Amino acid sequence: MKYSNAFIPTLREVPADAVIASHRLMFRAGLLRKLANGLFAYLPLGLRSFRKVEKIVREEMDAIGALEIKPTVVVPGELWKESGRWDAMGQSLLRVKNRLDNDFVVSPTAEEAFTAIVRDELSSYRQLPLALYQINTKFRDEVRPRYGVMRGREFVMKDAYSWHADEKSLDDTYQAMGRAYRQIFKRCGLSVIPVKADSGAMGGSGSEEFMVESDVGDNTLILCKCGYAANVEKASCAQDFTAQTSIENAKATAANTPAFEKIDTPNVKTIDELCDFLKTKPQTFIKTLIYRAINVELDLSSAPGCSKLERTKPSKDAPEVYTEAFFAVAIRGDLDVNEVKLAAILKASEVALASDADVIRLTNAPVGFAGPVGLTALPLVIDHSVTAMNDAVTGALVKDLHYKHVSYGRDFNAWMIEDLRTVKAGDKCSLCSGELYTKMGNELGHIFKLGYKYTRSMNVSFLDENGKSQIPTMGCYGIGVDRTLASVIEEHHDDAGIIWPISVAPFHVIVVPIKYDGVMKEAADKLVKDLTAAGIEVLLDDRNERPGVKFNDADLTGIPYRVVVGDKGLSQQPPVVEVKRRGEKDNFMLEAEKAAVDLTGRILEELKLF
Amino acid sequence: MKYSNAFIPTLREVPADAVIASHRLMFRAGLLRKLANGLFAYLPLGLRSFRKVEKIVREEMDAIGALEIKPTVVVPGELWKESGRWDAMGQSLLRVKNRLDNDFVVSPTAEEAFTAIVRDELSSYRQLPLALYQINTKFRDEVRPRYGVMRGREFVMKDAYSWHADEKSLDDTYQAMGRAYRQIFKRCGLSVIPVKADSGAMGGSGSEEFMVESDVGDNTLILCKCGYAANVEKASCAQDFTAQTSIENAKATAANTPAFEKIDTPNVKTIDELCDFLKTKPQTFIKTLIYRAINVELDLSSAPGCSKLERTKPSKDAPEVYTEAFFAVAIRGDLDVNEVKLAAILKASEVALASDADVIRLTNAPVGFAGPVGLTALPLVIDHSVTAMNDAVTGALVKDLHYKHVSYGRDFNAWMIEDLRTVKAGDKCSLCSGELYTKMGNELGHIFKLGYKYTRSMNVSFLDENGKSQIPTMGCYGIGVDRTLASVIEEHHDDAGIIWPISVAPFHVIVVPIKYDGVMKEAADKLVKDLTAAGIEVLLDDRNERPGVKFNDADLTGIPYRVVVGDKGLSQQPPVVEVKRRGEKDNFMLEAEKAAVDLTGRILEELKLF
Repeated sequence: MKYSNAFIPTLREVPADAVIASHRLMFRAGLLRKLANGLFAYLPLGLRSFRKVEKIVREEMDAIGALEIKPTVVVPGELWKESGRWDAMGQSLLRVKNRLDNDFVVSPTAEEAFTAIVRDELSSYRQLPLALYQINTKFRDEVRPRYGVMRGREFVMKDAYSWHADEKSLDDTYQAMGRAYRQIFKRCGLSVIPVKADSGAMGGSGSEEFMVESDVGDNTLILCKCGYAANVEKASCAQDFTAQTSIENAKATAANTPAFEKIDTPNVKTIDELCDFLKTKPQTFIKTLIYRAINVELDLSSAPGCSKLERTKPSKDAPEVYTEAFFAVAIRGDLDVNEVKLAAILKASEVALASDADVIRLTNAPVGFAGPVGLTALPLVIDHSVTAMNDAVTGALVKDLHYKHVSYGRDFNAWMIEDLRTVKAGDKCSLCSGELYTKMGNELGHIFKLGYKYTRSMNVSFLDENGKSQIPTMGCYGIGVDRTLASVIEEHHDDAGIIWPISVAPFHVIVVPIKYDGVMKEAADKLVKDLTAAGIEVLLDDRNERPGVKFNDADLTGIPYRVVVGDKGLSQQPPVVEVKRRGEKDNFMLEAEKAAVDLTGRILEELKLF
Repeated sequence: MKYSNAFIPTLREVPADAVIASHRLMFRAGLLRKLANGLFAYLPLGLRSFRKVEKIVREEMDAIGALEIKPTVVVPGELWKESGRWDAMGQSLLRVKNRLDNDFVVSPTAEEAFTAIVRDELSSYRQLPLALYQINTKFRDEVRPRYGVMRGREFVMKDAYSWHADEKSLDDTYQAMGRAYRQIFKRCGLSVIPVKADSGAMGGSGSEEFMVESDVGDNTLILCKCGYAANVEKASCAQDFTAQTSIENAKATAANTPAFEKIDTPNVKTIDELCDFLKTKPQTFIKTLIYRAINVELDLSSAPGCSKLERTKPSKDAPEVYTEAFFAVAIRGDLDVNEVKLAAILKASEVALASDADVIRLTNAPVGFAGPVGLTALPLVIDHSVTAMNDAVTGALVKDLHYKHVSYGRDFNAWMIEDLRTVKAGDKCSLCSGELYTKMGNELGHIFKLGYKYTRSMNVSFLDENGKSQIPTMGCYGIGVDRTLASVIEEHHDDAGIIWPISVAPFHVIVVPIKYDGVMKEAADKLVKDLTAAGIEVLLDDRNERPGVKFNDADLTGIPYRVVVGDKGLSQQPPVVEVKRRGEKDNFMLEAEKAAVDLTGRILEELKLF
């Protein structure tokens, strides 16, 4: 391919709205252009790399027996109504009405479409497990699209879905996907951090996110040098004690603590105000929060204050739930409650702080004076940290009143003791007791066990070995192709431009004749011809530009091998060309005659590494 | 690939709504499933063939130097407002509003997006010509989608666009595209009929459609054994005379015709009524129709009745037009006026029969009594057929009155004499005078010279060799990938199923062990391994089904080579397997040991033909 025919409009200037390296470099190197906010067009050079990422993803999916299909991008709204996501998804779902007033969705993911296809074809356990995928256009109507294709509105995602007769089979595919994902990112030259993550609104449990470090990442990661990695939503840390021993411990020490007593705290409601008032630290307080939980699956039949709650079934095959329930949650004053953990423990679809009115109704006191002592109106869930507290300050369930000298196990007990804390930098690693640190990360891929959410709501079934109708369980597995490509650039660049890993480079070699004329043209053409014949992808810079301009563009576009063909080198005996590996400091000479063979060998060796 | 893992849900029954072979067979052979009316999902087997068609298209585009890019599927409505198509396109354009109330379009074609990209990058004539393409999802909100993917709502189209400094360059690319299209269809095993077509609402002139014959086609083709082929909208036929000689001829004969005279024709308005009334044939009438034309570019400054018309400019760079103008159009009574031809002659964006009120105003008579004699209120455009008429009946511009003995050239003259007739089966070919016949056809591809429509409305310019700002001219070139695939099946099938051309077959070989067990399993596995190692794509029918079921599925899915591995054949000395080429009557035996090599040779030979 000749540069002059390749439509590579490189830029000297940095686009004003490009704050991260990949965004900047994809524009400057002529890979990408903007059509509108969050909508981008890949130009020829960018598309070449994009297709290589797609190909790697496809190969690894095929290798584990997943089958590629192609549903539509615009899918019937009816299917989304069946699954319940038509209502559940917010405004990021692009809904469309056509001329006949039918509802459609521009797919952000495709659980519904895939499940609908499988529903119609599935009859016997013999057809399971089944894993299908697509690499196709998706749309999410982001309020604030930014960072180029890292967070665009339209993007390409590989989304795979699998159906299984049992948990074991689901786990096998889930594990195989995990291995395939590691392989995909490795082949793209990416360092990913696989983290256990909560599966959030998607339902189900058992999930792993594949993150890359990014200053502008959407996720806070909790990391340890020992290899521990978790999304802050799910991260746990070492406790100073176990739940059981700490109860004994607390009791033992409580014996030496004076009986709890009231303190007047007029208009003192927050922990900070209490610290000021009592001249002490947040660690000495038990913070008690009232939460409202929605669709609670957990059995509350013996929970305090819950005897009158009744369970209902939101839909025919769905499990029974309490539509609404309230909980008191206690934690050491310097710690924060992790609501994702809380929701998981309660098996609730959502938890949020209760309204002031609910707090007053349930605690008989205004907000700010809740406490565990004497609390009977609702179940008390406490974090492990509370079990070690034996001389604490807490709200007294009365306006302007707190208690001091409160001891867990002596003055109150809990309905549940759980890990509820939001882990912070500086906490101790639960694996090695090392100090945890945090980084911001971007999610490139996500695999998770969906369970029965879609197969149940969309009435999928099969006959098992005994001829009995069963509902299959399901997994789902996504990778953002655009984001993966952008992340490669984030990880591989310098001040001069991109430094492509050879596996996803748009070309392997750029041949730069100092002047595309005479002997230099002849030598360059021959080199291009020989390399091309050997299967190497070559860009020939045939432009009538100064060498400096050509070198800058070669650096900017990041093609791994640059070969400079100059008259000086060609006039030597034997004639030589100058080779520079992008990203390395020094160049070296190759005999012009042998350059094609030598380079081909190097490139094939490098490709083997991916 | 093992059949049991390949998700090929073949059907015995024919889907109720499938009236054409490709629709039927794509469902029955497990290539396709329906998500909603006009929305289809390709299953693994279908997608394999689909990707092969895509690959052929991509290779041929790359071969002529077109560059692939990837804009979004959802594009900003703003661009469509710039080009004017936001308003001009009807309801088939799927318009979407997002959460921020921005307008978007789910692309049916992409002139706007491509032109917007090029507009921002184009500065110099040195960058031209430039040809870009995508193979991407499109949406057209058909009122009645039908015939499976032959006329779906969502589909994949290869659309290419090119920009040029001059007409010569546009023509070069247009010709290269024409050659590439012929090559694409040939490689897909398709017999296409390239026809000159009117470019219709897309604007511009110079276009060619690539049609396949189809009983349910949207287009009427006018064909001749000599090779002449045209869309009925543009087809011409031999005239019995040329315009010039016929005038002389008409005058000469008119000398022997009595002077024209009135005949009372109370309440006789239509040609049929006149025939009954006068006991004669339609050929003896001159039919005169009043047309209203919109945005007429043709110069009317000296046309009868037009002296008061004024020209206006619809937009800054657009040519001057008459917003509205009326014309009388005369043609022999047995012929029909082709409105596409008429619009092209008048350089009008639209022509339609005038309203009754306009007819009365312009002819001073009710509808049914227009005629050429004494008509001065508007320009008269006549078809060549009228010039040979010298004893004709026509309306007399008075209610209930006609003239007889009217002769062209003696009793009236025309402002323009043109080819206006709609060609019919039985007319004479203009090339060879053979008899023309008609067929229904489906359009698979369309190439055309767009001209300045988009570059002008979207303000694209470049500096020419003299540093002067110029507007580039443009071409556009589409191929429907789904429709091409379906057409392959239309052309290549029999009662038992599909007969894939090897170039687009999902697999080259299906290996069918009578029982996948023991020596048959061993021999089948070895054959699959050897063929796969040689680069041949093999499906292994490992199912525990009766041979009849397997053979039926092999025929239905249409894989070119079926190899049956049976214990009878394997027990011979030397052991043999049975090979059948799909679509051929007889099978033949190959030594089991040599089968892989022999088949590989045959398949590679066959592939070379495409």
